[in-house]
Amino acid sequence: MPQAPLPSGSDAEPTEPLRTIVKDQRLDAAQAWLERYPPHVIADELARMDAVDAGVAFRLLHKDRALDVFEELKPVNQQQILEGLRDRSFLDLVEGMEPDNRARMLKEAPAKVVKRVLAGLSPNERRMTSALLGYPDGSVGRFMTPETVALAQDLTVEQALRTVRRKGADAETVYTLPVVDSGRRLTGIVELRELVLNELDTPVSDLVVTEPAYAWATDSAEAAARLMRETNDLNLPVVDSEGRLVGLFTIDDAVEVIEAADTEDVARQAGAAPWAGHYMAATVWQLARYRALWLSLLLVAATLTVGVTQAFEATLEQVAALALFIPMLIGAGGNAGAQAATACVRALAVGEVRGSDLLKVIWRECRVGLVLGALLAALGLVVGTVFVSADIALVVGITLVLICGWAATIGGAMPLLAKRLRIDPAVVSAPMVTTLVDATGLIIYFLTAKAVLGV
Amino acid sequence: MPQAPLPSGSDAEPTEPLRTIVKDQRLDAAQAWLERYPPHVIADELARMDAVDAGVAFRLLHKDRALDVFEELKPVNQQQILEGLRDRSFLDLVEGMEPDNRARMLKEAPAKVVKRVLAGLSPNERRMTSALLGYPDGSVGRFMTPETVALAQDLTVEQALRTVRRKGADAETVYTLPVVDSGRRLTGIVELRELVLNELDTPVSDLVVTEPAYAWATDSAEAAARLMRETNDLNLPVVDSEGRLVGLFTIDDAVEVIEAADTEDVARQAGAAPWAGHYMAATVWQLARYRALWLSLLLVAATLTVGVTQAFEATLEQVAALALFIPMLIGAGGNAGAQAATACVRALAVGEVRGSDLLKVIWRECRVGLVLGALLAALGLVVGTVFVSADIALVVGITLVLICGWAATIGGAMPLLAKRLRIDPAVVSAPMVTTLVDATGLIIYFLTAKAVLGV
Repeated sequence: MPQAPLPSGSDAEPTEPLRTIVKDQRLDAAQAWLERYPPHVIADELARMDAVDAGVAFRLLHKDRALDVFEELKPVNQQQILEGLRDRSFLDLVEGMEPDNRARMLKEAPAKVVKRVLAGLSPNERRMTSALLGYPDGSVGRFMTPETVALAQDLTVEQALRTVRRKGADAETVYTLPVVDSGRRLTGIVELRELVLNELDTPVSDLVVTEPAYAWATDSAEAAARLMRETNDLNLPVVDSEGRLVGLFTIDDAVEVIEAADTEDVARQAGAAPWAGHYMAATVWQLARYRALWLSLLLVAATLTVGVTQAFEATLEQVAALALFIPMLIGAGGNAGAQAATACVRALAVGEVRGSDLLKVIWRECRVGLVLGALLAALGLVVGTVFVSADIALVVGITLVLICGWAATIGGAMPLLAKRLRIDPAVVSAPMVTTLVDATGLIIYFLTAKAVLGV
Repeated sequence: MPQAPLPSGSDAEPTEPLRTIVKDQRLDAAQAWLERYPPHVIADELARMDAVDAGVAFRLLHKDRALDVFEELKPVNQQQILEGLRDRSFLDLVEGMEPDNRARMLKEAPAKVVKRVLAGLSPNERRMTSALLGYPDGSVGRFMTPETVALAQDLTVEQALRTVRRKGADAETVYTLPVVDSGRRLTGIVELRELVLNELDTPVSDLVVTEPAYAWATDSAEAAARLMRETNDLNLPVVDSEGRLVGLFTIDDAVEVIEAADTEDVARQAGAAPWAGHYMAATVWQLARYRALWLSLLLVAATLTVGVTQAFEATLEQVAALALFIPMLIGAGGNAGAQAATACVRALAVGEVRGSDLLKVIWRECRVGLVLGALLAALGLVVGTVFVSADIALVVGITLVLICGWAATIGGAMPLLAKRLRIDPAVVSAPMVTTLVDATGLIIYFLTAKAVLGV
């Protein structure tokens, strides 16, 4: 097998892309392509194509692979594909999907599609889908599988294995078996591994983990996913407000949730709106739209720098050389602030820092900033002396210490303040900190210049 | 159970932190605290304490929980704890660890510790650890578990289950069972689920997935982890250069790898060196050290802006008002460039964009930048007119269009160029793009001013 072309590794790239083949209407070649690659490679390729071509290619898929590919697509692409399908294949797909994938797709779909889907489902699937849609957006309830194999408390291993055999075929996973009491309240979990490795007459109660990690259905999916990363569990039981088992949050969904959350944080950090689609599938207008709001807000905020510079115009006219160092100084402040902000946003996201650490973080970042500022000041003294004169160099050096200390403090404090105000800390983007530090940094610069040069 | 204080949710924070209890030397209270919380919460708390206190607290742990807590710690913390332990508990811990966790810890440990550990291990554990350490740093070979339950090709379900029972206790997972030929070459995988759900006399060959995704042991762990996210596999078989099975890469390690890679990318994006420790456990000097190099390099690069401004000093003296808009213009350019760079770095990381998309990405980002620039120009015309005059406003507006188009192009191109040159695209940080755009943006600004104002 290892002689075959490798699906492994991130750089394994199909030689001729499917989109060119489909564009040229070489349908036999397209079919051969589709048979050759695994579902996730096909899904990635479909996501890069325009809606019409993706629909054409999808309809060429063998029926038994169509569902696998479909479940790998993002909701926005799933919806595009669905719109081009006739009733029979439409219903087969939708009925075959995992309930949680289906619920997430429906959330993004227009009302027309939702109606068509719900009308076509079997009563059981419809009931499960509606239940999932009842949980808040972004909650673990939306991402869990409701099809679990729950065990009663008083079984033997043999009886438990029989239950798994009877009910397991429909379940998304049988590796974590929640144990429930007569009121379906969660009392523990058993791993299938324990059932297989122990004697048939062992009481299940000997193998139960009685205080498993779990999530409330309304908990945020990201928090639940990060909890799973910490506990190394494959599946996290999800309970309703009464403590009754309602589903399992599986690790593959947790990985998707973490990756999506990280992508969202990254976009926010750069001052862009997060979105759910594929970069290469977005139009220029879409990309521009996701970035336009923040970019405009930041430009408006940056008019502060115009005002500040104007307020010190007299100083600037007296010592024209001061203008030379403006970009370098506010650049350094912006960078120091961005470093601190990014470190704190990430530390919050992975749980290393909490909102209550605010004062501690301010105190650390302030000192870090001053240390870095002192280092930059040494460089700044050289630059200033080379380009202009020693007294200007002194102004530049002192300003660098102050700006870096101030920028790191602000950069560290803002994400934690956001967290305390229940705003997503990731909106405290590097550009936001930079813009804020630009205006205040100019004030520091001009005041230092006035003090040192006596103008 | 759900009445109990919840380990669930990311904000569940212990009421009194263990570090204060240990600082006050209230050892009984510390012991009670340690019994109350699950291993991952204890590990997080230990990571926030200084080395001495963490050692004290760790030694208070019940022996049967110590290993669970220890395996949750990061290598740097594990090493600190180990240094404070006497021989017996030291050896118990090290012998009990999973081979892959042990290998990763040893990689970061000083030679003295490595020697002590290897000398104390049983021959079998020592052999496995040395084998893992033989794979390159960051490769999936370092993260896989070598203890797998491999099946021969010609078994029945009953025989396969017997093999699982016999060898499963030592294996990290029994849910994915690699199938190998007589030369131990990987020929497929069987899921334990299939064995449990099918009749005992079913031939395993009926249940085998014959073309599973897999990784070479020397593949990057991040690429393998992202592949698992796409294929939704719980475990990825790892083979050597001959195609022989050498281990399984488990999903919990894949999640850690993805999270660590994202944290690293985030740090790089902000122009800081990535590191493996806990934010709250780092000293001020450590934090400063991780950021100092880039900050200094960027400052040196920023002296370009001093040179550019000096070159246009005559223009600036003729029209002093031009100085007012310098921070705003280079800020806007930096922001537009950072947005584009961040989007492309992330798209590369999750596999939506490849190095071969360079020209396509340049063409899209250039247009996105011009669209955004036109939007900002409208705002810039207003700002310019309000603060100074219509002709300066025109200079500002034109400059915004050009700077944004240029910045987005550069921001989009640089990560892909880095990828093609086999440099980690994440080193193309927002600060790096910003600094580059600062100097070139000033040239655009002054040239535009000369052309429009005729100075």
